[in-house]
Amino acid sequence: MSEAVAGLKGVVAGQTAICTVGREGNSLHYRGYSIEDMVGRACFEEIAYLLIYGELPNQATLAQYQNKLKQLRTLPTELKAVLKLIPENAHPMDVLKVGCAFLGTLEPEHSPEQQWDIADRLMALFPSMVMYWYQWHHLGREIDTNSDANGVAAHFLELLLQKKPEPMVLEAVDQSLILYAEHEFNASTFAARVTTATLTDFYSAMTSAIGTLRGPLHGGANEAAMALIECYDSPEKARVGLLDKLAHKEKIMGFGHAVYKIRDPRSDIIKGWAKKLGALRQDTVIYPVSEAIEQTMRSEKNMFPNLDFYSAAAYHFCQIPTPLFTPIFVFARIAGWSAHVIEQRHNNKIIRPGAEYTGPAPRNFVAIADR
Amino acid sequence: MSEAVAGLKGVVAGQTAICTVGREGNSLHYRGYSIEDMVGRACFEEIAYLLIYGELPNQATLAQYQNKLKQLRTLPTELKAVLKLIPENAHPMDVLKVGCAFLGTLEPEHSPEQQWDIADRLMALFPSMVMYWYQWHHLGREIDTNSDANGVAAHFLELLLQKKPEPMVLEAVDQSLILYAEHEFNASTFAARVTTATLTDFYSAMTSAIGTLRGPLHGGANEAAMALIECYDSPEKARVGLLDKLAHKEKIMGFGHAVYKIRDPRSDIIKGWAKKLGALRQDTVIYPVSEAIEQTMRSEKNMFPNLDFYSAAAYHFCQIPTPLFTPIFVFARIAGWSAHVIEQRHNNKIIRPGAEYTGPAPRNFVAIADR
Repeated sequence: MSEAVAGLKGVVAGQTAICTVGREGNSLHYRGYSIEDMVGRACFEEIAYLLIYGELPNQATLAQYQNKLKQLRTLPTELKAVLKLIPENAHPMDVLKVGCAFLGTLEPEHSPEQQWDIADRLMALFPSMVMYWYQWHHLGREIDTNSDANGVAAHFLELLLQKKPEPMVLEAVDQSLILYAEHEFNASTFAARVTTATLTDFYSAMTSAIGTLRGPLHGGANEAAMALIECYDSPEKARVGLLDKLAHKEKIMGFGHAVYKIRDPRSDIIKGWAKKLGALRQDTVIYPVSEAIEQTMRSEKNMFPNLDFYSAAAYHFCQIPTPLFTPIFVFARIAGWSAHVIEQRHNNKIIRPGAEYTGPAPRNFVAIADR
Repeated sequence: MSEAVAGLKGVVAGQTAICTVGREGNSLHYRGYSIEDMVGRACFEEIAYLLIYGELPNQATLAQYQNKLKQLRTLPTELKAVLKLIPENAHPMDVLKVGCAFLGTLEPEHSPEQQWDIADRLMALFPSMVMYWYQWHHLGREIDTNSDANGVAAHFLELLLQKKPEPMVLEAVDQSLILYAEHEFNASTFAARVTTATLTDFYSAMTSAIGTLRGPLHGGANEAAMALIECYDSPEKARVGLLDKLAHKEKIMGFGHAVYKIRDPRSDIIKGWAKKLGALRQDTVIYPVSEAIEQTMRSEKNMFPNLDFYSAAAYHFCQIPTPLFTPIFVFARIAGWSAHVIEQRHNNKIIRPGAEYTGPAPRNFVAIADR
């Protein structure tokens, strides 16, 4: 066997018709549509439908899809009991992981024909799961997860705020879901495909994806970015503090990308929202500090911000608690994950790579009495 | 990018010092020791220790390790409540998946230094989890999962049988755990490494592995083999029935292997146990039918049995219900999974391959009103 390629970087692990990333170093397309063309002209459910069902919906189909999602927001009684048993200090990503795995025992997949219904159910239910747990433990109230809100962003924000969100907040979160919806063979999607390829059930693939996204080198980066931004109360302190971190070779989350070489096309879009929302909040710290960090990373390390960096400020201005940032990533990426599971099943082969052995040469076994 | 290699077959996805599979087409070594040398000369915990901690233990270290595992068999109260909430007809692999994910919220990993303790805890607790759920739902009794049994096999069998197992049964299950303990970059282990590589927690990696092993192209094969064997009540009927299935191009589980080309070295060992246990049970059907299926697969398809095929008959003679076959695989493979997670973390890089795009060319977005 040849030598290992660290992290399979650049190794083509399969075919996909769902997405291209970084074709010209800085572009992103979902099924042929560029990210710049989709944002501002579609809501999240249009794009989720495009990813999972293959084409953009017309108005009647979109209304049908949104209505179906609305009907699927009710938590089963047993799942509510499990969510109450998850400790208050748990990681919200673990809440989604437990919830997803447990739902797979209540509403099991008996046949692959159910896969679209299960994708819809999970898309509708993930905000219900995490917000039911969050409100119960953190605010001591049992919420009704049903709502008439149109769309995932509105549903999540209403469960969080317990009132209708401001229009700008709603639009920002909805559009951010489009940005987070899909990204080809990123680590969590690839994990979902590896799991799927043994012909296991849909829930197992989603559980793998959530557990993988949870890591700070992947979805956890937006929370890490917020923690960094909150360290400083002025752009100048941010610049000095960051230089110190860089001198100590600390890893700064939210910058650079495994595939994009020039810039992350999603970053400018979410940065625009962070700026607008900052103005709405009359912010004089978070956004200027974020920009100072961006400028310092550019001048010192020649690194550009990725989607996660300005998502932090944007979500913060939407009054979303930091531990819920990565769950929002799940509410969106479930669209991409589902599309990839469906695609993997359509032309499946078990994913079983080889390894380069670096361990001891064959050696004689020594019985325990002689060790 | 070059062309996709289906299923990454033969692609070297990383380095490992834990295991070699099929070096001469038919060999298996754990950290340099051949599988033929280990079986009959070690108990499972010796081999689990070798895999996770790197070297074979001496008698004092083994006693310490087994004692530690004994102390870790108690289910937390909240986990018991969750297990009771999982429906009776759930897949036992989903019980382990939910249990593992939920335990990650009760006993979270705050630092990678905890990884060895968590590996030990899960090894001790997996039999407790699945048997507590099984006995509660299937036999209507709440069992005490603590036991003084020495070793994983004895612990599992005592919880299942609610008495001490026969010596031959105990030895067979213990030795089968050695056979199932580790297998390089198989799909579930690779899934665990993909998950680990985002620097997420230990439980997430194990949850991915369980969900991946669950599939019929992987761990689920031993259950599928049993279902096939039970279709026939004589060797002649098995031969005729199998020819018919082959004529209809049905996939027969438990034969052939992604890596082994000549034979699976584990198969002869487990076949020996199936034969001995069959004699103990005065069986005149299951073992002869199994042999008839093996002979027919060899003569008609030139395919050899893998570990899963004769594991079915062996476990059946041990009076283990078929739905618990794949969970036994977990009790063993947790050793290999843990070793790989620890190894991946030691020299980590995110696993993020590329993809070959086969979808639509860039196209103009059409607003919803115009669709």
